[in-house]
Amino acid sequence: MNNTLLCDFYELTMANGYFELGKGNEIAYFDVFFRTIPDGGGFAIAAGLEQVIDYIENLHFSDDDIAFLREKNIFSEGFLSYLKTFRFTGDIYAVPEGTPIFPGEPILTVRAPSMEAQFIETFVLLALNHQSLIATKANRIVRAAQGRPVAEFGSRRAQGADGAILGARAAYIGGCAATACTISDRKYAIPATGTMAHSWVQMFDDEYDAFVSYCKTYPHGATLLVDTYDVLRSGVPNAIRAFRDVLVPLGIENCGIRIDSGDITYLTKKARKMLDEAGFPQCKIVISNSLDENIIRDIILQGAKVDSFGVGERLITAKSDPVFGGVYKLVAKEENGEIQPKIKISENPEKITNPHFKKVYRIFDNETGTATADLMCVYDEVIDETQPLELFDPVATWKRKVCENYTAKELLVPIFKGGKCVYKSPDIEQIKAYAKSQIMTLWDEVKRFENPHRYYVDLSEKLWKIKQDLLNQGGKNA
Amino acid sequence: MNNTLLCDFYELTMANGYFELGKGNEIAYFDVFFRTIPDGGGFAIAAGLEQVIDYIENLHFSDDDIAFLREKNIFSEGFLSYLKTFRFTGDIYAVPEGTPIFPGEPILTVRAPSMEAQFIETFVLLALNHQSLIATKANRIVRAAQGRPVAEFGSRRAQGADGAILGARAAYIGGCAATACTISDRKYAIPATGTMAHSWVQMFDDEYDAFVSYCKTYPHGATLLVDTYDVLRSGVPNAIRAFRDVLVPLGIENCGIRIDSGDITYLTKKARKMLDEAGFPQCKIVISNSLDENIIRDIILQGAKVDSFGVGERLITAKSDPVFGGVYKLVAKEENGEIQPKIKISENPEKITNPHFKKVYRIFDNETGTATADLMCVYDEVIDETQPLELFDPVATWKRKVCENYTAKELLVPIFKGGKCVYKSPDIEQIKAYAKSQIMTLWDEVKRFENPHRYYVDLSEKLWKIKQDLLNQGGKNA
Repeated sequence: MNNTLLCDFYELTMANGYFELGKGNEIAYFDVFFRTIPDGGGFAIAAGLEQVIDYIENLHFSDDDIAFLREKNIFSEGFLSYLKTFRFTGDIYAVPEGTPIFPGEPILTVRAPSMEAQFIETFVLLALNHQSLIATKANRIVRAAQGRPVAEFGSRRAQGADGAILGARAAYIGGCAATACTISDRKYAIPATGTMAHSWVQMFDDEYDAFVSYCKTYPHGATLLVDTYDVLRSGVPNAIRAFRDVLVPLGIENCGIRIDSGDITYLTKKARKMLDEAGFPQCKIVISNSLDENIIRDIILQGAKVDSFGVGERLITAKSDPVFGGVYKLVAKEENGEIQPKIKISENPEKITNPHFKKVYRIFDNETGTATADLMCVYDEVIDETQPLELFDPVATWKRKVCENYTAKELLVPIFKGGKCVYKSPDIEQIKAYAKSQIMTLWDEVKRFENPHRYYVDLSEKLWKIKQDLLNQGGKNA
Repeated sequence: MNNTLLCDFYELTMANGYFELGKGNEIAYFDVFFRTIPDGGGFAIAAGLEQVIDYIENLHFSDDDIAFLREKNIFSEGFLSYLKTFRFTGDIYAVPEGTPIFPGEPILTVRAPSMEAQFIETFVLLALNHQSLIATKANRIVRAAQGRPVAEFGSRRAQGADGAILGARAAYIGGCAATACTISDRKYAIPATGTMAHSWVQMFDDEYDAFVSYCKTYPHGATLLVDTYDVLRSGVPNAIRAFRDVLVPLGIENCGIRIDSGDITYLTKKARKMLDEAGFPQCKIVISNSLDENIIRDIILQGAKVDSFGVGERLITAKSDPVFGGVYKLVAKEENGEIQPKIKISENPEKITNPHFKKVYRIFDNETGTATADLMCVYDEVIDETQPLELFDPVATWKRKVCENYTAKELLVPIFKGGKCVYKSPDIEQIKAYAKSQIMTLWDEVKRFENPHRYYVDLSEKLWKIKQDLLNQGGKNA
């Protein structure tokens, strides 16, 4: 599948314009950043870089693509001819997948000829926005489950095939234990899992027969769906009979039930008691009915007896806040070999950009290991960790803090250099472990679900002054 | 791209179970239906059938797929061998794309050997849920715009590549005039459109230069983005100068401006006045900033001067209600050649299914042409249009209405017969026109955005009795 044409049409009209005006090879710098954390959370998790890399490496226009564009009658033959050999030749820097990220800071930076840099906007945003959204949502749900495994079950409600396939990947990065989506296992090694639907039970003459048949077919870890008719009067008693009649004689202890409807807290307490009294205290209870982090938190608080969760539509679509608003903005241009910072002003102040080719440091306190703040600097600034570092709030500039005994870690790492990929994506288990370890460096106050503490994202003195100067010039020549 | 493995893992465990138990070739009937209309609307629009057909026709397991499944160590060799030649051999009936649809009624029905019928669940739901969601949302937005064109601009915020590509297709079915997504034009003939980003303006020394350059490159219908610095003090005056300096000498009248931030009502009124006074009353004003049906309705009520809308994230993700809850439920089985209706009971009454192999009639009043109600019947019932037809509410059964002078149109049409596709998808323009014509048959009260009149979806006397009998039996042997 070649996604080269998965671009907003204006990327092509602009690229053709730059080409015709002789501006196509001017070097431009673009940042991807986002403005708001979904669900009012305290942090987001970066994901989707591996798909950006695939996309960049496979970028090319087929003859048919070019014929299609020619029929639009607005592109010059020179430009269409240029597209024949179009490849990405620039540099890309990005934060590794699994990194906690915050509003306003670049999570990916492109330095490339303007035609190329402009062209890749749509897909880069789509890939990062989608997977960061789902990884962030999944992590909220996983944290609400307090150590109980969460499986991603949402393929049927996903917004398209990739919504399911890559959504499962992102959910795994965010901390899910498994997915129901088989192809995500095949393509991305996300462990796929699943047991039975209500239709299994309906296909048999009665529920007990259905359960016995299932236990005989899959004696190891059989999980029986007990809510087709009546959980407590039919489902659980039939499950217990089936476990007794099939698993006990085989000496198999590992088993489970799943409840997909009704009052989960009430039903799981009752079912737990019935299972324990019948001699199946090890039987796991799985639940799965329109769950999200709020419902999971509540039913745990109410004492529901749940061992693991299957979470569908509210995870795979990030239902409560289904847009990750990453944007792609020009931040600098090279003119006669000099990097000129650029700003976008707006009637909406929150839409004003942070100009210039930047690096981002995350400042860790060496005593506690926690992340204190992120600091955006101009590309040529270097932090000397042996010296105290003064941070200040970019709006309330009198609020200042001096860091000592800290580590300054650069967040953006080189991904492409001169069009060549210089980065090897870690395997999915490493990405997941990295996300977990990095989230552990955040203050609990930042991890709160509602009204979290706002993590500090500051500008260096040098970058702050450049931004102020551009704002005072009204951005006119910036 | 082979999506055969885009299935919940339990489809495979169940299919293997049926195979092993000798139940794989028992004929099963499944319905796809949904329970709730997104956004509290009065109707939804069916979409996604063309992708279901593609999927069914391409269903097959590669050797690598089978090797992957073998490694799971839970599938029998007999089953894995069966998968080598796995094809869909059953029948499918569905409502054509663009049909208004209502909760509880089948929008797609499958009759097939249980292994096949079960297996296709995940993808069939995914395709119909996704595109029906977006077509329904797009139609709300298009109706709010009251005849002004709406372009779909959301690719960068879509949930994955297909979210963008097929989302644009669904939005077009729902009534959008165009998309920004180039590949949707290439693959599905959805007209792609677009002009410039803020970065275009920033790439030039000043805004006027950027506008002049754009008008010279694209003199026909140039639409200039006027909010990079200051809409009224810089953007609109520079656009007017550029139109005067480039387009007027060429005798070109067709032009436009786009505003992407700020107070749209205020800015468009002021901009309209400036353009009119400068001699550009024909200049179109396009707006595009986190729009949806509510914002569009409000700004039109407030007198905003807008000629067309670009709608992004809130359309492509159906942000306000991003899940279409179509489900796939067993409704009948064949036993000794007899069709036995099946029901799924639930602790949540709204989760109880309508049993049996069914047909659905839409009853049109011949005098007004409007749709009166939908009527679900048992598959072998036939409505005689020459006779009065009594409809009754399936819950409040004393509420009855007799229809006379009506047309009863069957909604479900054959798509597959014995595994062979017997349906040719209309082209996208036909689907779009069909949706528009069918929505026109609905009462205005059903089309209200909030608190719409609930459209009647009734059961025939025969079907209603079968359902009551099954409920009274507790579904045990049903």
